[in-house]
Order: sequence, then C-alpha cells, then structure tokens
Amino acid sequence: MTRPSREALVAQESALAAQYDAYRGKGLALDMTRGKPSASQLSLSDALDGVLAGNYKAADGTDTRNYGGLEGLPEARDLFAGLLQVEPSEVLIGGNASLTLMHTSALFAWLYGPAGAGSAWRNEADIKFLCPVPGYDRHFAICEDLGIQMIPVAMNSEGPDMDEVERLLTADASIKGMWCVPRFSNPSGIVYSDAVVDRIAQLGKIAAPNFRVFWDNAYAVHALHRDAPALASIMEACREHGTADSVLVFGSTSKITFAGAGLAFMGASKANLAVITRHLGKTTIGPDKVNQLRHTRFLKDAEGLLTHMDGHAKLLGPRFDAVLATLDREIAGTGMGTWTKPEGGYFVSFDTLPGLATDVVALSAAAGVKLTPAGATWPYGKDPDNRNIRLAPSFPTPADIQAAMDVFVCCVKLATVRSWLAEG
Amino acid sequence: MTRPSREALVAQESALAAQYDAYRGKGLALDMTRGKPSASQLSLSDALDGVLAGNYKAADGTDTRNYGGLEGLPEARDLFAGLLQVEPSEVLIGGNASLTLMHTSALFAWLYGPAGAGSAWRNEADIKFLCPVPGYDRHFAICEDLGIQMIPVAMNSEGPDMDEVERLLTADASIKGMWCVPRFSNPSGIVYSDAVVDRIAQLGKIAAPNFRVFWDNAYAVHALHRDAPALASIMEACREHGTADSVLVFGSTSKITFAGAGLAFMGASKANLAVITRHLGKTTIGPDKVNQLRHTRFLKDAEGLLTHMDGHAKLLGPRFDAVLATLDREIAGTGMGTWTKPEGGYFVSFDTLPGLATDVVALSAAAGVKLTPAGATWPYGKDPDNRNIRLAPSFPTPADIQAAMDVFVCCVKLATVRSWLAEG
Repeated sequence: MTRPSREALVAQESALAAQYDAYRGKGLALDMTRGKPSASQLSLSDALDGVLAGNYKAADGTDTRNYGGLEGLPEARDLFAGLLQVEPSEVLIGGNASLTLMHTSALFAWLYGPAGAGSAWRNEADIKFLCPVPGYDRHFAICEDLGIQMIPVAMNSEGPDMDEVERLLTADASIKGMWCVPRFSNPSGIVYSDAVVDRIAQLGKIAAPNFRVFWDNAYAVHALHRDAPALASIMEACREHGTADSVLVFGSTSKITFAGAGLAFMGASKANLAVITRHLGKTTIGPDKVNQLRHTRFLKDAEGLLTHMDGHAKLLGPRFDAVLATLDREIAGTGMGTWTKPEGGYFVSFDTLPGLATDVVALSAAAGVKLTPAGATWPYGKDPDNRNIRLAPSFPTPADIQAAMDVFVCCVKLATVRSWLAEG
Repeated sequence: MTRPSREALVAQESALAAQYDAYRGKGLALDMTRGKPSASQLSLSDALDGVLAGNYKAADGTDTRNYGGLEGLPEARDLFAGLLQVEPSEVLIGGNASLTLMHTSALFAWLYGPAGAGSAWRNEADIKFLCPVPGYDRHFAICEDLGIQMIPVAMNSEGPDMDEVERLLTADASIKGMWCVPRFSNPSGIVYSDAVVDRIAQLGKIAAPNFRVFWDNAYAVHALHRDAPALASIMEACREHGTADSVLVFGSTSKITFAGAGLAFMGASKANLAVITRHLGKTTIGPDKVNQLRHTRFLKDAEGLLTHMDGHAKLLGPRFDAVLATLDREIAGTGMGTWTKPEGGYFVSFDTLPGLATDVVALSAAAGVKLTPAGATWPYGKDPDNRNIRLAPSFPTPADIQAAMDVFVCCVKLATVRSWLAEG
C-alpha cells in the first residue's frame, strides 16, 4: 500500500472533516465501552425467576434456602466442572461475580499465601504479574489495588508469547502470577493454541511454589458458532505435568444468564481449594444456593447450556458482523489499522497506527460514540504505542452498532490522514 | 439457697446418672448449635422465587439483570435504611452475607485504611478490638484471621460495660474496633439501652480517627413480640456527637427471608462509604440486583417487613418458651445456673457454675444433644470461667427442643452435683 500524495491527503482530510462534522451534527449518544449483554440476550434467561416452582430442595435433599454449603451444590459443581474443564470435586461456586473470586484468590495469596503457611506474597519484597496485552482492565485493577507490579507480555495469534513468558519467569522469582483469558481473549478474541496451553501448564515447573496462573475462562462457551476453535484443558495438562497447584481457573454465567445475577465459579486442585475455603469460611457461611439451584434447573446439563449459548450467538453474530463488515469495507487496504476477527467472546481489538488511539477515541466521543478509553487494555492504562482500541458490540442494537461504526471508521481515517499530513 | 447435704447429693447423683443413662439409651440426635431458621420459617418466604413475574425492571428503570449498581437499587436502599436506622444514601447493599460485608470492612481497614490514605491498620504495630462477651464466634474468627488481638469486655443488662470500654480506649490507642450486636445480642439477647448507645456514639471523640465500631444489627427486627425493647439509632446519636465516621452498621435478611439467599447490607457515613466502594469496585461490578428487586417486591415496605416478622415470631415463640419453661422448672432456685430471657434474637445464654460448661456440653453430646462448643462465645474460644453455653432453639421442632432441653437440664444437674461432691 502506498501512502496517497499530499494533495490527495488534503482533499481526503477536507472530505472526512465534512463527514465528521455531519456525524457530530446528528447528536448521537452511542456506547461501545463495555462487554455488557444486550436486553435481548438477558431475556433468554427470564425463566430463571420462578423456575423452582416452590421446590427449593437440591438433588441430595439440601434445603437451598438455609445456611451452608461453602463449596456449592453438587449439581452446580457437576455442571460447571465441564465448562471449567476440571473435576466436579475441584469446583467452588461463588457469588455473582468471578471478579470477586479472582480478587479473593489474589488477596488471600498475598495475605495468607496460595500454598499455605510461609507462602504469603506479602512476605516478599516485590510481587509481579505477567499481563498478556492487550488484556482486561479489571484484571489490572486487582493488581494495582494490591500493589502488584505488572509486566506486559505480547500476545500473538496463538496466545501469549511463551518464549518471553518462560524467559521472564526463569529470570525473576518475584513473578507470582499471570493473567490469561484463554478462549476468545479480552479483547483480541484469540483462542490459545494447544501448544500454548501445554507450555503454560509447564510453568509450574520453573516458577516458585507460590506462583499461580489466573486462568479467566470468561468466554469458555461463548462462541459465535459451534465449530469455533476449542480450548485444551489447562487442568488436564497440568495434571500430566504434575503442576495442578499452579493454576486457578475461573468462569461465570454472567454472559450466559444474567450479567449481574448469575453464578461465578472457580476450579482448583484440592490443595488450592483447601487453602482458599479455609479463609473463605471466615467471610461467609456459604454462597446463594437458591440461585445455584435455579441455574441447574434452568440450564439442565452441558448440552442444555450449549443450546442456550446458541441463542446468544444468534444475537451476537449480526453485531460482530456489523463491526467487521464496516472495518473490511472502510479500513481494509488503507494501511490505517489492523483488527482481529474473533469467533466468539465480546470484543474486537483494533490497532490504529502508532500514536493515534487517543485521538480516535476523543474524536469518536466528541461525535457521540463512547469507546473504551485508549490504554485501558494495558497495565496502568498505558499503551506504549497508543494504538489499541477495544470495540464492544454486544450491548447496542445492530442499527446502533452500524451508526457507531460509521463514526468510528470516519474518526480512524480522519486521525490517520491528519497524522500523515502532520508528518509532512 | 443452701447446698444439699452430702448424703442428699449422693442420692441425687445416682438418680441423675440413671436418668442420664436412660436419655443416652434413646439414641437421640438433636442439634442446638447454630442460629439457623427452621424450614417453617424459610417457607414464609417461598414466594420470593417467581415474585418478579417476568418484570426485572427496578422503579427507576434499571434492568436488574445486567451489570452495575455497586451501592444497590434505590428501593432496596430505601427499605433497609429503616432497618439499619440510617439514611438511604448511607446504605450499601451487598451479597447474601453480612459476614462478608463485615469481613470486607475489617480487611479493607487493615489493608487500605478506614479513613483513606495513611489510616491502614497494618501500618501500626498492634491492632486490637474490644469484644463484649459472651459474643459471636464468627466476629472473633474475622479478628483471628486478620491477626487482630481481642480484648473481652463484660456485658451487663444494658449492654457492654461502658466504663471499662472508655477506660480501655483512653489507655490504648491500638484499639481500632469494637464488635456490637446491639439488639437481642448474640447470645445474651440483651438490648443495648439508650444510654449505652449514646456512650458508644461518643467513643469516636476519644478514639483514634481510624477506630470503627462494628455495629452488627443482625436481629434489628427479630423480636418475639411487637412491644419488645427498641434500640436507639447509633447513626443518629453519632451525627449529634459529630462522630458519624466512627461506626459501621450491618444487617441482613438472612433471618428475615432465606438464610443463604437473602440480602446483606451496611450503613455508613458518606465518607466511609466512599472509602469502601472505592476498593469494593475492584472486586465486583455490582451485587445481585435481581435478588434485591425480589426482596423489595416481596417485603414491600417497613410495615410489610414487620408483618412478615410477626410470622417468624409465631414460630420462634414456642421454641423459646420450651427452653425457658424447662430452665424455670428444672434449674430455677437450684443455684446450678443462670440464664437470659430474651425478647427476640436467636439465642438463650446459659451460665453454669464456674468450670462446668465443658462438662455439660460433653455430657449432652454423649447423649445425642449437640450444643455450641463451650468457649465459643469468647475470643479464641476461651471462656476463662468455663461457664457460658449458647442455646440455639430456632432450628429444631418444639418437640425436639423439649427433648433436647430435658437432656440439657439433666446434664447441668449431673455436672453440678458431681462437682459439689468432688469439692467434698
């Protein structure tokens, strides 16, 4: 691709500026910031309330209304073990947010130690986490809140750059954790390859005993179609390598049933579960088992869950299509940006030319299209190349996404043309 | 009361031992350990599931199914502000357990500081809490888990011994907190007098700025009859004394609706709420708003809540009666023990003669009646006089309570007579 002549750029800038002003004049108020399900998606689970029909007894006779059951109902542990790719005995059902389980796991590791007495992170001088980038801002916020230093590691099409991960971990014993969103990664949509999963499972061999991979399988079953790339089981791989204690697996139904009223769960080796439940038992007498029962009655089994997810795919597919078709039509071949084409998850990751992400986000905002702040996908909110933008197409209607994307591509082009002009 | 002659004691011991053996032979399996609602109580709220009838929209139009709303739905904050005796703007709705809110508040105070930067308890050498005794073992467990030293303070009929509380707090700046269960205290059932509430509200004047009263109003509306003693509002008293930041108020519907699937909430000054939500927002995107909506639709308003509680009182009344009538009939006037006569809450506190609580609990257990372990009502599980036993009559049927109490009084008498015989 050859860059247009200065004369052509001037003409383009003028046309784009006019187009941009026209968009501004429309008084749009569109939001593509967060990975929130749309109302239509949420409605797929409206039968949850009332599904118990007065029968609050779990399969084993437990009265779900009363106290207790720190690890969760057997039927819930069974169902979500499949999603987490662990054994039912390795599952802990939490509250409504996997973020809380991740925060609690990190906090307990810092405070008490992930491997029992003597392993508390706070007893060591520095604590660092590896953060594949672009990544999830709420993961980074947990590290910041606990004073954990973050080291970015590049993602490639198969997952994190494992050569770099292994090099860093070998060189620096203060690295105690690593964030991973292994299937339909946030925001790139990448699915970790089997080889990468296997190498991550072996990190426990080179890391300190109090190192933990935080495997946030947030989009485990969130494919746009059934033949999307599968993810290998990290726990199974860990078992083969004798490193089962090195990984903590997380998931939730936030994007399966209700975003704010679903179930969160985690999978961990029995040794890890014992450490966590020992302290968790001081903070609660047990999670909401009634909601667990609602979910198992509603989703039924693994196939029921996948069928339910087909409904989400049907609603999300056209939204992703609107994003990708617009980028293909307007940006492909212009040299103005690159992007991912996820087969699941909640995001499209867009890279502008270096230095332009902040401008594009600001231009879009001024025209009524709210995007995730530039830099949000990097630790400390600092994208060194200032190029990554996370597009979240789940919440708006397809028509609104189209309107937002029309503005977005106009802003990308305007910012790029202006930067080319400024370069002379 | 004169102690019986040795001869009479020998005869009594023999008769009691025979009675005890007869109880043992019955193969009883009764449990009076925990303050769990009975199935009948839980059934009072069975209409919760399904109460939404497909309408998930809050009064302000919020879609409760989606993410967000860290502080809770306005209608939930309104309803439970009354129970907590604070302003709606001072309410935070949490998950299903007030224990979690208390743990989180203590943990955040330790880690980040209850009054913002520079106030973290972990930066000081020793941290201590005042613990009115007898008290609640799960409060003590939070302190133990965080390495907070506990100082017992005696309870009298009006609440904690405030002379002692003020003396300790004036003398020792490392005291950063105090546990209170102000209405129908666990386990004594005592309701703090207005004078005590007012003195507690003034502790903020003599304590360090990072001192907090943990006001666990777990039994705020849990009276056995409507004219049971009321509790003065701690927050109102604090406001008068300019000490609103010195108190954190907690409550839940665990013993109003479902023990394991209710709502927990806390009340705090705006300054305190801001500190807590700042860090809470790193651990969750928000609590389960669907369950909040269920609760406000089901309980309706303050009067609806009290009417609902009348249903609990009707079920709990006969259970408390069975305990108290048996103690009155069998122990009163014997000099073998003293106990409280609560007008609400979940417990009766029984004091044996010094040194006998462990024996009574062990004898009861051997005869198939499980009681809360002796010492559980004291910090570190150590009752220095080994005399306090918490009786929890809510869960068993009235018939089972009667059976359990028959065994209990037999054990009290047997242990006491044997101790008198041993003394010579």
